[in-house]
This record gives sequence, structure tokens and C-alpha cells, in this order.
Amino acid sequence: MSVSHGFKKLVKVREAVSILLNTFKNLEPSIEEVPLTEAYGRVACRNIIASIDVPHFNRSAVDGYAVKAEATFEASQLNPKRFRVIEKLKPTEDMLYEDDIALKILTGQPVPDSLNAVVMLEAVSEADGFIEVYSPISPFKNISRKGEDVRKGEIIVEKGTIIAPQHMGLIASCGLTRVPVYRKIKVLVISSGEEVVTPGKPIIHQEIYDSSSYVLYGLIKRKLSEPWLYPKSPITSSIKDILEALDYGLKEFDITIFIGGTSVGQTDIIPRTLAKEGDLLFHGVAMKPGMPTAALNIDNKPVFCLPGPPVACFFSFLEIVAPLIEVMYKLKKTFKPAVKARLKRKIAGEVGKRVYVRVLLKESNGYIEAEPIAAGGAGILSSLCKAQGYVVLDENLDSLNEGDVVDVYLLEG
Amino acid sequence: MSVSHGFKKLVKVREAVSILLNTFKNLEPSIEEVPLTEAYGRVACRNIIASIDVPHFNRSAVDGYAVKAEATFEASQLNPKRFRVIEKLKPTEDMLYEDDIALKILTGQPVPDSLNAVVMLEAVSEADGFIEVYSPISPFKNISRKGEDVRKGEIIVEKGTIIAPQHMGLIASCGLTRVPVYRKIKVLVISSGEEVVTPGKPIIHQEIYDSSSYVLYGLIKRKLSEPWLYPKSPITSSIKDILEALDYGLKEFDITIFIGGTSVGQTDIIPRTLAKEGDLLFHGVAMKPGMPTAALNIDNKPVFCLPGPPVACFFSFLEIVAPLIEVMYKLKKTFKPAVKARLKRKIAGEVGKRVYVRVLLKESNGYIEAEPIAAGGAGILSSLCKAQGYVVLDENLDSLNEGDVVDVYLLEG
Repeated sequence: MSVSHGFKKLVKVREAVSILLNTFKNLEPSIEEVPLTEAYGRVACRNIIASIDVPHFNRSAVDGYAVKAEATFEASQLNPKRFRVIEKLKPTEDMLYEDDIALKILTGQPVPDSLNAVVMLEAVSEADGFIEVYSPISPFKNISRKGEDVRKGEIIVEKGTIIAPQHMGLIASCGLTRVPVYRKIKVLVISSGEEVVTPGKPIIHQEIYDSSSYVLYGLIKRKLSEPWLYPKSPITSSIKDILEALDYGLKEFDITIFIGGTSVGQTDIIPRTLAKEGDLLFHGVAMKPGMPTAALNIDNKPVFCLPGPPVACFFSFLEIVAPLIEVMYKLKKTFKPAVKARLKRKIAGEVGKRVYVRVLLKESNGYIEAEPIAAGGAGILSSLCKAQGYVVLDENLDSLNEGDVVDVYLLEG
Repeated sequence: MSVSHGFKKLVKVREAVSILLNTFKNLEPSIEEVPLTEAYGRVACRNIIASIDVPHFNRSAVDGYAVKAEATFEASQLNPKRFRVIEKLKPTEDMLYEDDIALKILTGQPVPDSLNAVVMLEAVSEADGFIEVYSPISPFKNISRKGEDVRKGEIIVEKGTIIAPQHMGLIASCGLTRVPVYRKIKVLVISSGEEVVTPGKPIIHQEIYDSSSYVLYGLIKRKLSEPWLYPKSPITSSIKDILEALDYGLKEFDITIFIGGTSVGQTDIIPRTLAKEGDLLFHGVAMKPGMPTAALNIDNKPVFCLPGPPVACFFSFLEIVAPLIEVMYKLKKTFKPAVKARLKRKIAGEVGKRVYVRVLLKESNGYIEAEPIAAGGAGILSSLCKAQGYVVLDENLDSLNEGDVVDVYLLEG
């Protein structure tokens, strides 16, 4: 039996995501151009096209001697082909080379048009200004041909790519200095609860510090977006405060997230209040932790209510909010393989809910072992800091057994 | 046979790293304090200690009814224990509760000192202001005990931790607002070569754009450090220019990296010039690509010479420079598991060298398949952009066969 804690109906995680993606399929951040040096970790907002061939001349792939391949075709051990070596460190003009000339050349240097192969330095020995070649060399051997890396007009970075160091290099190799990217998605984080206190202030007996705002702050940054903390956080459960915060969010931000007061108890007024301002897409997700999660469409902007306990808030963001951000950024599907590990202990799921279990990872005898962390609880943040990853038990699993090989999703840090 | 291209001796990758770590074992960046919101992705420079117990009171882990556990010890199906329900949304003072009182309580709310267990909401049904409990409940059932998450005085974030969202939350949950971190390691990147042109400028026939500087720029950011491009890049191979750049690097930066002109050809003057200013630690590493890599200790600062071709520069940084940065930051050893994949094609290694082969990854029939990318070459940056990861063939391997299960290290992006 899936316990719903007063929720009439729990929506499955994948349904929740699919509702969100459908509702907001036309949302796309605005765009800007940034200098190449600022492009790291930004998302390309259109295909970036090579403006030149790279290399834009035939260049040597090795240190050696450029020759005419045809001149070696008859070469053999008994009848080596002899070349006269010339050196020319900076070939500024292309000259015609005789058949018996070998041009000393370094890796990366241009191969003159009248030569078409390079003999590797260590394949021959130079003596008295001559080399001998003992076997035929095929045309373009050891030459990086013009356009071999990139052809002019080719897509070098696809729309939706997160710019990594290698992309920065490829953009530079075409001579480009500015990169068209999406503006960072701006996300407002609003915490709530009369017992919640902002760090830095004193707390009395029953109060707790706001930790979930900072968990989200980090997660939003990790999702390449721009987090903002609502200046009046934590808000009380008054309708006026909620609507004021909503208004602030809708005006300036792409996504607004309320934390806390998201269940169906009598003090959980936030989803109810917001539902009057737009469409409640779902409230109550079949996940553990993270069940009291709601999403709304208000003025065609996504508004979320995430649970207050920080671990619940963490998984709720990862599973519900993050996929929307990825789709808004048109992120290319990348290969995100999980780590295969053997469970050290049985873990219990809950049929009807997707359950997230934090694990420690250890390498032992060539296997990776995943040890579930006992101290669960949606509020026990230290367990998430100790864990290296987490295992997901799908809705139809009531448990996983000791020794089972499971997929572990790695946590950062 | 390992080809040394004129290098007298090649040092193995792990020797090179161990020489570096030994030489610079006392280097540590200076420290600073940043606001919690700026702490994401920074490195803790000392253990961060909990200033309070979290939670700092017993709190309910569920929605339900707080009772005295002892009052349920005799409860059974035939003889249920009946409790009168009272509600008290904001317990500001602790009162004494009678044995037959059940305090309605929400997840996260404080459990008064005179009560010591919580019955889950869905385990009982409330009628006419009463609930009945049919079985004994053990003390502290469904209660998050004071200090359960974190105990006052406990280490919440260890020195050398990269601050992730969950750490930000844990720091916040102790009420802390400032985080002691290492200052970002400042790295100067100097490119060289008369054929090298900075992107944005026109190029003529035999010139190429500087791409390696931007590959490094991104990699340095990824290693949580601060990249700077030398304003006079690319420099020529004149001793004056090299020494001027070195001087600039030693004055303001923690690490100085020269790119290009690092081999042993007659134009490869940079390592030779720098060697006169300090200790040449090694020149020539048994890796492919990346062989023409040198490291020096000049005035107790690390100075590197990395090869010009961008793919070589990439692997050289990852394997030689990055481990030093990690040790300077005192990074905790984290679990960085490789992805296990089956090789789709045989790949050739080179005995005596560590060889890096870029691969595409595909999931097929529940297996992950790694397809080597044919277009190799130290300069073919597009191959690194297409690849999802790379396979390392150790010095003693001359090949890996089709079907072999290999470790694939994932590339970002």
C-alpha cells in the first residue's frame, strides 16, 4: 500500500516530468553572446559553424621529411630512394620541389602543395644532408589534410551543448571569439515557515535554520542557472506574503520555487493559495523522500512548491525541477551512465513510490560495493554529505537484496 | 620500442606526477572567507565544525501524534490504549503532558520533552478527538533526536572538500554564513609559436589559430582555479620574450604554463631557456599524445611546458598538471569510478607509453559499448568534442581487443 499522507492521488515521477515538459515545451531562455573566455559551462543557443577549414592547409602530423610520395613508389631495401634534405623553417611561399628533395618539417608545419607525404624522422637516418627511403610511401601519409579536423561550414558545436574545454578550443581553432549562449535561467527561491530562521540570526528552542534554500542555491548553480534568494525569506503562511512573493517571482524570474508548507496539512497553505492564481499541474508525487511536491503554471511560468526537509528538497529538485531546466536549455541528451555496484545490504523500497537511498561506495576486490546509509530521514542532510551516490528503487520494487548489482548515481563533491 | 623523438629519456606518467607532488608538497594556496552563497564549487581550507546540535531539539519525523511511549506498552488489539488528542501548533513552552494525551504534530515540529514517541497519522484514525493505539510503541519511535543529524563540535565539512549543494545546506543548518576556502589557484597560460595567431585576427596561409590556450582556460576553470591568458601571447621563441613571460608568471601566479615549442627540435627553445632559471624536473613524458611535456621548479613555483597540439595539451594537463592542483587544494580523494564498457574494435597501444584513446559510448542490449574514434592525431580537436570518454592503455599494453571490457573515463560536455 502506498501511503498518501492525505494526498488524494500521487502522480508518478515520470508522469510529473512529462506533464511539466508538455506544459512548458515552448519556454526557452533568451540569448546573448559572451566572449570565448566566458563560455565555459554555458549552453550554446544555436549551432556554431566553422568559418574556415581547420587546418586550413595540409600540415605535417609528425616531425620528419616531406617528399613526393610518387618518388618513393619504386623504393625497396635493395634499391632505396635517395633524397637531398633541405631546411626551411618558415615557408612563406610555396615553391616547386624537385623529385629528389626532402623538406625537413616539424609537426604542425605546412606541407607545400607540391609535396604530399611525410617520412617520419625516426624511420630514416640523415647523413651528409641525405636520407634514404627503403619502401614506398602512400600519398598523404603523415599529413593532416586541409579540413581534416573541421570543414568550413560544418557544425562544430551543436545547439544545446554545454561548452566544455574541448569546445572552447575548437571554437578558437576557427578563429571565433564570441559564443552565442542562452542567458542563464533565473530561479527565485522562497523559503517559508514560522519556525524557519535565516542562518546568521540567533535561534530559540523550536526554531531551525533554513538549509533547503542553500541546497537549492547550489543545485541551481549546478544546473547552469542563476539562483536568487527572496529577500523576505522565510515568509509566513499568510496569503498576502505568499502572493507578494509570487508576484516578485513572476516579474523577474524564469522559475519560482517555494520551499515548505507544501503538504496537505492545515498549515500547508502555499499550494492551495497558488492554485487560485493559475493551473495546479500536480500536487503530491510518488517519491520518497520528496512526496509533498507541487508544480503550477502561472502566467505561463513554472512555479514549484518543494518540501521543506532538505533531503526531500534535494531529490525533488533533481527529479522534478532539473529535467525542466534541461529541456528549457535544449540540452543535448548526454551519456550519463550510472556506476554498477553490488549492494552490501538489502534495502527496502515502497511499492507505488520511487525511493531514493543514499549509499557509500567502496572498491573491494575489483568490485564496487554500495553500502546503504542507515540514517535516512528527509531531514538528515549529513547523510547526503557522507554519501557518494544514491540508488533509485522504482515504483514496482519492494526491495533490493544484498549482492544485487544496482545502478548508483553519483553525487557531486 | 618506444620512440622518443630525440628525448634522451621519457619519464612515466606516474613518476612525473610523483616528482611534482614531492617537489611541491609544501605549496598551499592562501585562504579567504566567502559568503555561503559564494561557496559552491570552492574548496574548504579547514574542517568546518558544527556550532550547534542539528536538530537542536527532538523533532517529529512524521505527521502524527506525540505520546508517551510508556503509555502504550500494555496496548494490544483487544486492549487498545486510548489517547485524547490535543492540538498546539506552536509549542513555545514545554508543558507536562498527562499519560493519556496525544499531541497532534507535524513533520519537523518539536516533540515536547515529556513525550517521547510519535504515532504515524495513517496508523490510527482519529474520531471524536480520540485515537486508539493497538500495539506498543518503542521510545523515540518516529522522532529525530536532538543532534541526530549533526552534533555540536562535529566536523560537518572536511578540509579539502569541494563544496557541493548538500554541504551548503549542512553549513546553513548550523546557522553559519561564511565559509573558509582556499583562494582560487591562479594559473597563467602563455602560448608561443610564430605561426600561432590569437582568434579574432586574420590568418594567412601557414598560420593557425591558438586553440590550446582556450582548452587550458576551460580545464583550469574545471579544476576550480582561475585561468589568465598572458596578454602578449603568442610569444616568439626569443629568449627575451620567454624570460619576460616567465617573470610575469612568477610574480602574480601560482602556476605558469607555456604552450608549444616544448619538444627537442632546434626551434624548441622554451624548456632549454627555462631550465637555466631553475630546476628542470622532467622533460619528455611517456604518454601519447602529450610526450613533449616538461615541468620545472623555478623559485619554488611550478612552471610547465605543454605541447602545442590541442589534444596533446589536453591530456598533458589532465595527467600532469591537474594532479598537482588537486594536491595543492588538499582535495580529499573522491571516488571517481570509470565506466565499464566493451570495446567495439581493437585498439593499438605502444609499449613503454601510456596511450589515450578517445571513444564514443553507446548503450546496446544493457551493455555499454566503447567505439574508438579513428581520427586520432594530437591536433584533431573535433575528435575530442565528439568523444564521450577515453580509454587509457597502460605502458605495458600493446593493444586491447574487440570485446575487452575497459574502463572509460568520461569527458565533460
